Amino acid sequence: MSRIIRNTTTREMLAQLAREAEGLSQRERREFLRKGVTALSAAAASGVAVAASVNTDNLPPNEPSWSRQLGHGVVDSPYGMPSTYEQHVVRRTVPWLTAESISSISMTPLADLKGIITPNGLVFERYHAGVPLINPDEHRLILHGLVERPLIFTMDDLMRFPSASEIKFIECPANGGMEWKGAQMEALQFTHGMLSCCEWTGVPLRVLLQEAGVKPEGKWILAEGADGAHMSRSIPLEKALDDTLVVYAQNGERLRPEQGYPLRLINPGWEGNTSIKWLRRLEVGDQPWYHREETSKYTDLLANGKARKFSFVQEANSVITHPCPEKPIRQSGFIEIEGLAWSGRGHIKQVDISFDGGVSWVPAQLKGLVLPKALTRFSLVTRWEGQTWLLQARAMDETGYVQPTLKQLREVRGTNSIYHKNSIHTWKVAANGEVTNVQIT
Amino acid sequence: MSRIIRNTTTREMLAQLAREAEGLSQRERREFLRKGVTALSAAAASGVAVAASVNTDNLPPNEPSWSRQLGHGVVDSPYGMPSTYEQHVVRRTVPWLTAESISSISMTPLADLKGIITPNGLVFERYHAGVPLINPDEHRLILHGLVERPLIFTMDDLMRFPSASEIKFIECPANGGMEWKGAQMEALQFTHGMLSCCEWTGVPLRVLLQEAGVKPEGKWILAEGADGAHMSRSIPLEKALDDTLVVYAQNGERLRPEQGYPLRLINPGWEGNTSIKWLRRLEVGDQPWYHREETSKYTDLLANGKARKFSFVQEANSVITHPCPEKPIRQSGFIEIEGLAWSGRGHIKQVDISFDGGVSWVPAQLKGLVLPKALTRFSLVTRWEGQTWLLQARAMDETGYVQPTLKQLREVRGTNSIYHKNSIHTWKVAANGEVTNVQIT
Repeated sequence: MSRIIRNTTTREMLAQLAREAEGLSQRERREFLRKGVTALSAAAASGVAVAASVNTDNLPPNEPSWSRQLGHGVVDSPYGMPSTYEQHVVRRTVPWLTAESISSISMTPLADLKGIITPNGLVFERYHAGVPLINPDEHRLILHGLVERPLIFTMDDLMRFPSASEIKFIECPANGGMEWKGAQMEALQFTHGMLSCCEWTGVPLRVLLQEAGVKPEGKWILAEGADGAHMSRSIPLEKALDDTLVVYAQNGERLRPEQGYPLRLINPGWEGNTSIKWLRRLEVGDQPWYHREETSKYTDLLANGKARKFSFVQEANSVITHPCPEKPIRQSGFIEIEGLAWSGRGHIKQVDISFDGGVSWVPAQLKGLVLPKALTRFSLVTRWEGQTWLLQARAMDETGYVQPTLKQLREVRGTNSIYHKNSIHTWKVAANGEVTNVQIT
Repeated sequence: MSRIIRNTTTREMLAQLAREAEGLSQRERREFLRKGVTALSAAAASGVAVAASVNTDNLPPNEPSWSRQLGHGVVDSPYGMPSTYEQHVVRRTVPWLTAESISSISMTPLADLKGIITPNGLVFERYHAGVPLINPDEHRLILHGLVERPLIFTMDDLMRFPSASEIKFIECPANGGMEWKGAQMEALQFTHGMLSCCEWTGVPLRVLLQEAGVKPEGKWILAEGADGAHMSRSIPLEKALDDTLVVYAQNGERLRPEQGYPLRLINPGWEGNTSIKWLRRLEVGDQPWYHREETSKYTDLLANGKARKFSFVQEANSVITHPCPEKPIRQSGFIEIEGLAWSGRGHIKQVDISFDGGVSWVPAQLKGLVLPKALTRFSLVTRWEGQTWLLQARAMDETGYVQPTLKQLREVRGTNSIYHKNSIHTWKVAANGEVTNVQIT
């Protein structure tokens, strides 16, 4: 049916294919071109059901217009940007979420992302007094308090230390927080988009603490930002000596302004606000500071009126990224159920999928790199033939911790909090393939 | 000497530190502020040797200007960009390298990068007829030739297949090619900058070939781009069935235009030009096509007048990224010698460092992720006290292959070629810390 066509152009080859197909009936012609793609969207390939917005002049057997002309040269874009056809893939805000844009959140478009790395231009944002524009030559990190040698570092000082690079997720503990009381966010970007994952490079904080010499009574560290909010958090010394990084680069290049340029903390696996951005000051003390952002904010008010404080760890969580409200199912046949799982305590060990709202479960496959405290991709290939699904994912991490249901979580935590909602999430897949966010309690 | 200062602002704390230091002599004051940073650049910390361009109003004990005002809000930059202070970190071209910008190269600023991921905006560029602007809805991939079922795929078709994500380097075989005959490129960006590493996501080519059904006599695949050059290469079926990916995403987001948006091949570990961008056509044949870009170009002309053809693999290579011409040594004391190693045949097993132009070697440490056919970071912490170095790195991969000297390479390949120069590279470190590119033959 096909033949070897050597040294011909695409145009000639396709014209030949089209001629071969011409003698066939409409149905045979479709078969000719679609054969073997029964599970695929072959409508466009058959030339029959091309959407109105598609310029058919660019479809086979024609050579598309961009193949018949020269493109732009090499000097036009020294720092590259996405295609203009991808302009919809941006961080987005929820206007009613905060009163001021300088103390707000933008969220990562998870539905459009692949793999585990979040590109720097799409890493979610959260700040408390806007993004400061900091001159790195004039930025200083001060390390003082219960130390033998108070120190002041320039950026050059810090970049002289041996560096370490780690792929770690970062997540705002308010991720999904709008849903504690039942709000329905109709997009993955808004249910889970305060979540990103980068390769971070910097100096382990323990190295700087060794240089300063922590006194025996030193047990906590206050990290303070250089932003107008002087955003600050108290961090136990154990974490600082474990895996906290003083970071100046993300995904290879220097930090983006909204990510703390020129310097930030990364506390792997911990709630994002502890990873202080625009890091200016580290003070060693013998107890926590109980600053605003660890008392009136970033504590979890329980049903009995008491609040959990210093609830640092982002426990195991997961979400299905395909299908999702932004990516409905457009065609029956095989489908890859895909998603992301992560745990602040280490590796993801297993992810299960339910199609019936948690009654029965089947294991998904973990694919690609499975790194501790990093986003992990899971996948399950199945078929969809128009049935209604209540689609869920449930993650288990290396400690054996299993992601709870919303009911289980509410039994323990009530509904007052907005933080640390890591419960099993449900997408309802309708018979027409549309996906909506539903709560199963 | 230091004390606990609770609930004070940075300004108060620093004023207090400054008062404590005031009673001391100049030397004691310096000691007070520098103590413990003997190995660090503490001049700025002491307030003595601050460069003229630095606004001292922003230095401790003052609060910097950006801490006393609000920054920009969350809606200003839906797709983020680097800080304006990093505008020098861009891809650069060598003007004399090619006659036309539409058939040229821009190179990755390796000296400014950390870790192993290259951010998408800095991935090196090479194209043969400029960058086409392709409408993904009108883009088609044609798979035909010696197959049971010729197929045409839309982008939606391709993205419906189960995806795979892999962190792999990509390198132009001309990387370092200007130096075969002895040209001295005075920057790491120009000696090795046709090199990047991303997380690529797509469909394994073997899956598409299974769909089409390769006939028994099918042995080679022609991959052709939709650019004006119709850039094409012949690829053995063995590679296609092994690890070739049909890629639509890099570092999470869709491919950048200059990287082949909306579709490209990635042939892991192979010379970059085989990873056809703007991929439009795959034809299965029983022998290679001997197109222009695998005969008059991308072959290695040997001293005897014969040319190596289909020299696909990028053999083990390495380069020191710090120090380098762009990053001279500015201070005596400890220094991290850092660099990148990579091999088209698999993992990097070992990297050695020489300070004397290859007479003696010491092993470096591999740090971070060590992945097959990916960039791998190596590191050696030592001291520099003004001595002159002939600094080299030498990589060995998992096959036991050891990176050759330039002399060894020339003995086998002569000096006619511009491709596949993977010889040991030498930086000369002068007594003043300046770094220049020298050839040891």
